[in-house]
Amino acid sequence: MKTLFQYNWQVRDEWFKWCEDVEEAELLLVRTGGVGGILHTLFHIIDVEWSWIRVMQGKPDFQESFDDYRSLTLVRELEAAFKPEVEGFVLNWKDEMENNIFTDTAPDGRIFQDTWGEIMRHMIAHEIHHIGQLSVWAREVGKTPVSANFLGRGLAKKK
Amino acid sequence: MKTLFQYNWQVRDEWFKWCEDVEEAELLLVRTGGVGGILHTLFHIIDVEWSWIRVMQGKPDFQESFDDYRSLTLVRELEAAFKPEVEGFVLNWKDEMENNIFTDTAPDGRIFQDTWGEIMRHMIAHEIHHIGQLSVWAREVGKTPVSANFLGRGLAKKK
Repeated sequence: MKTLFQYNWQVRDEWFKWCEDVEEAELLLVRTGGVGGILHTLFHIIDVEWSWIRVMQGKPDFQESFDDYRSLTLVRELEAAFKPEVEGFVLNWKDEMENNIFTDTAPDGRIFQDTWGEIMRHMIAHEIHHIGQLSVWAREVGKTPVSANFLGRGLAKKK
Repeated sequence: MKTLFQYNWQVRDEWFKWCEDVEEAELLLVRTGGVGGILHTLFHIIDVEWSWIRVMQGKPDFQESFDDYRSLTLVRELEAAFKPEVEGFVLNWKDEMENNIFTDTAPDGRIFQDTWGEIMRHMIAHEIHHIGQLSVWAREVGKTPVSANFLGRGLAKKK
């Protein structure tokens, strides 16, 4: 579980570096699919990851809008602000947290229950899915996307 | 680990159903990014998943080309042929297989070593990444993509 988060964080860092060589207008351009743009996607990934960590712990969620983060620098600053709390939670994950229950109430009153293990896997899949979208948009920009390869990143579990 | 494979298989099935309502020409159209098309991506996911299962076990790999599978029916038949072996391996995964070593030699003679655990996570991330690409192309076709949500799929680990 932890190594898939570490994979996501490595890949995300590489996308941030990738963005340095792309015109900001391209990063902000509204595109087809997903949340509709490269930088908006990175913002969304960071927002969603942090939000789940917060709500599992019963803490208040982040309610900002991408409108206030429309530059690479601002999105990176947001990530730097959130990272310690996210890392602290993920890297201290214990198997016995797997079946903790998170209960949520939808706006229409329906009640949802998820285990923390499901939420952690949801967070992992959420980021990888959105990064897949970036890889298509990178080609639209005419650039090679960041490698999505999990292998060769030194992410074998310690024995 | 197993539940992320089960997630991928559920999502993949839903994409196959999604494809039923799309013109075959759209499924075959060469698109920007990834392996360059909707059906080709599904073929590639199935091919890569099975190939890793085979090579970890020291069995011969699949060497077919997408040129021979250019219809929804043919790709589904391929999946049905591969599924039992893939499922058998994944659902019988044991933690003690985590650090088994797979050694591969690149065409230039360099030697790569990966643990089986890394390969399994690579397979998981590989499929989710490519499905993210399908979600962009679905919008290009003018259709709503399959949900990538992990939650609500009954994929909590058994206690």
